[in-house]
Amino acid sequence: MKDQFFDLREKIQHKIQPIGALGLLEKTAQQVGCIQGRKNPEIRHPHLVVFAGDHGITESGMVNPFPQTGTAQMVHNLIRGEAAIRVYCRQHQITLKIADAGVKTDLSELHQHPAFIPAKIAPGTRNYLEEPAMSFEETERAIAVGRVITGNIAATGCNTIAFGEMGISNSYSASLLMAAFLNLPLEKCVEKSAGDNQISRKLETLQTVLDLHRSLISLRSPLKTLQYLGGYEIAMMVGAYLAAAEHKMTIVVDGFISGAALLVARELKPTLTDNCIFGHCSGELGHRHLLHHFDARPLLNLGLRMSEGTGAALAIPLVQSAVLLHNEMAGINSLRATG
Amino acid sequence: MKDQFFDLREKIQHKIQPIGALGLLEKTAQQVGCIQGRKNPEIRHPHLVVFAGDHGITESGMVNPFPQTGTAQMVHNLIRGEAAIRVYCRQHQITLKIADAGVKTDLSELHQHPAFIPAKIAPGTRNYLEEPAMSFEETERAIAVGRVITGNIAATGCNTIAFGEMGISNSYSASLLMAAFLNLPLEKCVEKSAGDNQISRKLETLQTVLDLHRSLISLRSPLKTLQYLGGYEIAMMVGAYLAAAEHKMTIVVDGFISGAALLVARELKPTLTDNCIFGHCSGELGHRHLLHHFDARPLLNLGLRMSEGTGAALAIPLVQSAVLLHNEMAGINSLRATG
Repeated sequence: MKDQFFDLREKIQHKIQPIGALGLLEKTAQQVGCIQGRKNPEIRHPHLVVFAGDHGITESGMVNPFPQTGTAQMVHNLIRGEAAIRVYCRQHQITLKIADAGVKTDLSELHQHPAFIPAKIAPGTRNYLEEPAMSFEETERAIAVGRVITGNIAATGCNTIAFGEMGISNSYSASLLMAAFLNLPLEKCVEKSAGDNQISRKLETLQTVLDLHRSLISLRSPLKTLQYLGGYEIAMMVGAYLAAAEHKMTIVVDGFISGAALLVARELKPTLTDNCIFGHCSGELGHRHLLHHFDARPLLNLGLRMSEGTGAALAIPLVQSAVLLHNEMAGINSLRATG
Repeated sequence: MKDQFFDLREKIQHKIQPIGALGLLEKTAQQVGCIQGRKNPEIRHPHLVVFAGDHGITESGMVNPFPQTGTAQMVHNLIRGEAAIRVYCRQHQITLKIADAGVKTDLSELHQHPAFIPAKIAPGTRNYLEEPAMSFEETERAIAVGRVITGNIAATGCNTIAFGEMGISNSYSASLLMAAFLNLPLEKCVEKSAGDNQISRKLETLQTVLDLHRSLISLRSPLKTLQYLGGYEIAMMVGAYLAAAEHKMTIVVDGFISGAALLVARELKPTLTDNCIFGHCSGELGHRHLLHHFDARPLLNLGLRMSEGTGAALAIPLVQSAVLLHNEMAGINSLRATG
């Protein structure tokens, strides 16, 4: 990989003066070239898959003013309505798929829709305040299905993919996974979008969960930790990440929950982040800490807190710009317009 | 304008939960709505005009390893080659125009090209180490021509515009204008892309120019200062900014030199920045200080140092995203996917 990297850098340096004029886009083009193992990388048929799932913790009434049925409503809005991610995918010709990984509500009426992927492992996770969120078998199955979904997309000729998510309360799972894998205090692992009152209640709930499963977490088993604290959509995304890297895809990483899933996936495949371009830094405190941990310099920093994969969708045209310029720009004869 | 603003904010708040989820894009949509004076703003036929001009200082041999002919070569590359800005304008369906404001080389062979605007005020400025860069009449004429160019573009139905520039040594003019108008030490007004040796020589040259024209600068006349220290492409851009605001256009501001031209234009029309969306923060030190002065929060921060308007071109799809979402997204019934 190293030789290709230097070849590519040389190619870029011959094209653009002064060196470094493209800033982060230059690094992005180099990375895509390394992922694809070619000097003229290209972005083909970008896809964005939104994984949806419900969380048992929501029903405890301790965490969220929104009912679980909100997830199903959001899926409907994604398929037929005008959700933000639909608008952005249409704007940038990104193919959008929505996978039901574990929505509580029956969604069989959507099965015939071409954007819908019926992949329900179970109707919502269990409440991790009482028991593991998923069974081990379910966790493994969700990962396997995520792999298959991504493999099918790769088979269409797509080489660039992003993953979004939706699921009422899934930020709880993300915070728990982040705290467990990075051994960080919970204060650094939460979203700060909720009010102060809500935050302290959230931290309390999260601490209770961590305390409850402390002996499990101390085993440092990625799969077991995911099983106890995660969710179907997160587990499916873990499998999707792994398969995307195996198919030499460029992965544009979205926000906080996608980042937490990446943490888990990287435990299973440490080189995974070689394939990852971080799309954006959201307005969430936990996400900033997570990006810092990945040593990531995201392409966008717009303070988005939209979920659904919106940050990644807005970053994909920048990845395209990086690659386009690299491939299309003629030499400038060592001259620049401005001195 | 205030009522419209609040109406618009109300509209956005009814569409998107939680409030603020779109971050900077939300502010951007609000601003475009205020500029257009409508609740459903739209981005129509975006244009990007690159103004090109040469600078007498280049010939002094004190400033730059590049000959003045470099500007003409860049114009050719913009019209027929694969300059970065062409690639990006094609990617995002932005109409690209290149105006010869004052290139030293004769460019009459390009006159028939549809993207070329022959508007040469004179073949390069004079050397401000010896005399004013332009005559007062030339300065006024360049501004007037910039107005006409923008008016013609507005007449095509375009409501969103960006301005780029090219001109060997024009960063000297930008630094001088910034130092003169903001009364900042030169160290805060320069690009830092050159090596340390070059920087100290550049600062010395710039200081000599400022000292030479100190009594003029102390008059605080925007037009006189522009005349003495500016250039044809910068003066033409000043006129373009003014006309764009008069035509109620959204202006996506590019980098350091475009920012310096905006400083001058704002002296002539203090409300001008109401129409300006700052496209990006470049890798240049001076540009960061300039943005700080404008209290700007730019959409992109990619460390670009490409000139030509590339930063603005890459930001235009984000302005489109802001407006699209605002106009297209259905209500989410107060529900969000993630809690």
